[in-house]
Amino acid sequence: MTEQSTHRVVIVGGGFGGLYAAKAFSRIPVEITLIDKRNFHLFQPLLYQVATGTLSPADISSPLRGILSNKNVQVLMDEVIDLDPQNQQVITRGSELSYNTLIVATGVSHHYFGNEHWKSTAPGLKTVEDALEIRRRIFLAFEAAEQETDPDKRQAFLTFVIVGAGPTGVELAGAIAELAYNTLKHDFRNIKTTEAKILLLEGMDRVLPPYPADLSAKAQQSLEKLGVTVCPSTKVTDITGDIVTTVQGDETQHIASKTILWAAGVKASEMGQVLANRTGAALDRAGRVMVEPDLSLANHSNIFVIGDLAHFAHQGERPLPGVAPVAMQQGQYVARLLKQQLKGETLPPFKYEDAGSLAVIGQNAAVADLGFIKFSGPLAWFVWIFAHIFYLIEYDNKLIVMLQWGWNYFTRNRGARLITGEATLGRATEPSNRSLPTEAKTTVQV
Amino acid sequence: MTEQSTHRVVIVGGGFGGLYAAKAFSRIPVEITLIDKRNFHLFQPLLYQVATGTLSPADISSPLRGILSNKNVQVLMDEVIDLDPQNQQVITRGSELSYNTLIVATGVSHHYFGNEHWKSTAPGLKTVEDALEIRRRIFLAFEAAEQETDPDKRQAFLTFVIVGAGPTGVELAGAIAELAYNTLKHDFRNIKTTEAKILLLEGMDRVLPPYPADLSAKAQQSLEKLGVTVCPSTKVTDITGDIVTTVQGDETQHIASKTILWAAGVKASEMGQVLANRTGAALDRAGRVMVEPDLSLANHSNIFVIGDLAHFAHQGERPLPGVAPVAMQQGQYVARLLKQQLKGETLPPFKYEDAGSLAVIGQNAAVADLGFIKFSGPLAWFVWIFAHIFYLIEYDNKLIVMLQWGWNYFTRNRGARLITGEATLGRATEPSNRSLPTEAKTTVQV
Repeated sequence: MTEQSTHRVVIVGGGFGGLYAAKAFSRIPVEITLIDKRNFHLFQPLLYQVATGTLSPADISSPLRGILSNKNVQVLMDEVIDLDPQNQQVITRGSELSYNTLIVATGVSHHYFGNEHWKSTAPGLKTVEDALEIRRRIFLAFEAAEQETDPDKRQAFLTFVIVGAGPTGVELAGAIAELAYNTLKHDFRNIKTTEAKILLLEGMDRVLPPYPADLSAKAQQSLEKLGVTVCPSTKVTDITGDIVTTVQGDETQHIASKTILWAAGVKASEMGQVLANRTGAALDRAGRVMVEPDLSLANHSNIFVIGDLAHFAHQGERPLPGVAPVAMQQGQYVARLLKQQLKGETLPPFKYEDAGSLAVIGQNAAVADLGFIKFSGPLAWFVWIFAHIFYLIEYDNKLIVMLQWGWNYFTRNRGARLITGEATLGRATEPSNRSLPTEAKTTVQV
Repeated sequence: MTEQSTHRVVIVGGGFGGLYAAKAFSRIPVEITLIDKRNFHLFQPLLYQVATGTLSPADISSPLRGILSNKNVQVLMDEVIDLDPQNQQVITRGSELSYNTLIVATGVSHHYFGNEHWKSTAPGLKTVEDALEIRRRIFLAFEAAEQETDPDKRQAFLTFVIVGAGPTGVELAGAIAELAYNTLKHDFRNIKTTEAKILLLEGMDRVLPPYPADLSAKAQQSLEKLGVTVCPSTKVTDITGDIVTTVQGDETQHIASKTILWAAGVKASEMGQVLANRTGAALDRAGRVMVEPDLSLANHSNIFVIGDLAHFAHQGERPLPGVAPVAMQQGQYVARLLKQQLKGETLPPFKYEDAGSLAVIGQNAAVADLGFIKFSGPLAWFVWIFAHIFYLIEYDNKLIVMLQWGWNYFTRNRGARLITGEATLGRATEPSNRSLPTEAKTTVQV
């Protein structure tokens, strides 16, 4: 069916890197296959809004087939499990695919630094399922507190611990504080949601460590104004049941909390190890793949690694951060590079054009570092909103998100605070931790 | 804390009946507790739009606490498991609650007529989780067909069987046909989605059996125009693996289908049996509770049953249908009745004010029976849209649904076609049925 002479490109992963590569490639006469485990592209920067009940998963997702339906791209819903660089094939669960050029963009997952058993107690936020699970835990905690009569147990249900004060941790802490101190204020009868404690733990000496120190200070002020207790220079040494053990200087603390969220670290997805095994590619300590200045592998110039999975350190001292703009630009670069190579030409090395960093804390509160200017407050928040909406409406129906936000902004409502999934109160999957303990069975005076 | 003299009302179930009772009661000086397993009210008539990828669960749900936050209602997220009418207490998983008046509105679930083992193969559509599971199966079937090379197996992935042609079955069949023949038309490379078969099986001799015969005929025409194969007078005698066995007259057929949906019958929720055991209440064949003309139980005038769980046959020959308007009116009636009773007065028996029936088939296609007038086509569709939006915007942020619909209407888009949950292609929970069989492992020519 296909001509042998056509150049075949296989892209693994439909995140920002893979999708932008696929979109840029489609203007070049090559055959492209995009492989992803999921059937949709996820706008991960807004995932915390799903986890805290503002948006629905579909609001920040677009079906990959829909985005690419008019392009010369074959979408394959499958998972790559191995690689044969000698025969130029990727092996998926369902098939083997030949490639002339391979682009790997499978991203990263959570890193518990050797404490993988903390995962079930302290989930991270990477997938739609993660977000729905976190949403379930947050709102179930308020429901359980409402029914709990023991003051200590009640306080554990009303204590939310977020480990890690990078952008995700800051966003989660801010949104939970807004829930407790605002959205849910009038919804309960036995508890005051304003008595909730939201603790943001950070091992470094300030929140948003990659940002300039004065913006970190502003962010901390904004968080504290919202009701978040910020704990810098605080290391988590243990998570057992619902007790988080922390060390700050010489002081050890035990915090009882039923809702512990992990936003502390990432490690490379499994494709990093596959690449190391099959091509001899070097990995960094987080398992990310060391790439050449043109994003290819040292020994395999037809294999490229882009996005969060790539360790690119040819620009400045530190590797490029794992953010969407880096992945997008790398995807587009590889497409341009291949176009030139097919014409027998080449391109200068990849160079990231840094438009700046934005982190949101809560309504009207954000910090922005655009390089030439730093600012915070409502203006940063509006820049953040419009930067995200601009991206979202590039795709199909995400105009609706803007309307939803507009509505939420004026009503301070959070309509998506559903508790879904198999476990509901009283028949949870993790009874020791998530449901009302049986000894809490009480006669409620109605 | 509470005065003994205050009249205590316990409402079990936050569907249309329970919620409308709670809202009406809140104008009366009584203490009200609304108990529901879930923390949200679900607008079930639009659930098929979640199952077919148009709307998100949160678009058709509202948090019960949010709806009732300004009312004199205590919301309890819990499940009632037993009843003690002598001591006037309901027993939940977490507590016991005293009542002076009890209102049971726990609705119905699927009925497989003694074939409960069909359930995992042919799920029904009652909960948000049901809808997401059906959505997952529908879109996974197209993905699997795209990768399947055996023509028979491919056709089984592209065959959708809906059992039961009541409103839910008709809506599901119409929406799946629109997906296959319209929304997804350009999204696949190996399959033509327009080769999908959508079979709507109905044991009675026509679709929408409760409707007048001419509207049933119109509905069938509309369905066929959309691409649905309507099979009236067809009984399902077996569902094994992915084979549905049907009998139509003397003819037995075996249909291979990977997506079988159940919309054929309902039975009372477990509270029906609890009421029968504890109060001696009579049940009908579907397990619904026989109620007095004032919706109370014969031997317990302070226990009311409303909505789908109630069998109310004091108005016409047949019991009232299990539709939202009946439940809403019954909830409001019981609140009014109690108000009168507390003043030492009474009310005439409950009378359902039937404003008519509406069923939607697809875009621009619906049938309406308003009693004094019957019509079909685009006008009926617009009446249907506005009737539903009118209800939805009674609550919080559901204006957004209208905008989403408006957008979808002009773009024919379905943005919520996400495959979520634990099982994705290649690692499904039911490998024999849902994932690509291992023998289908093929080399795809890219």
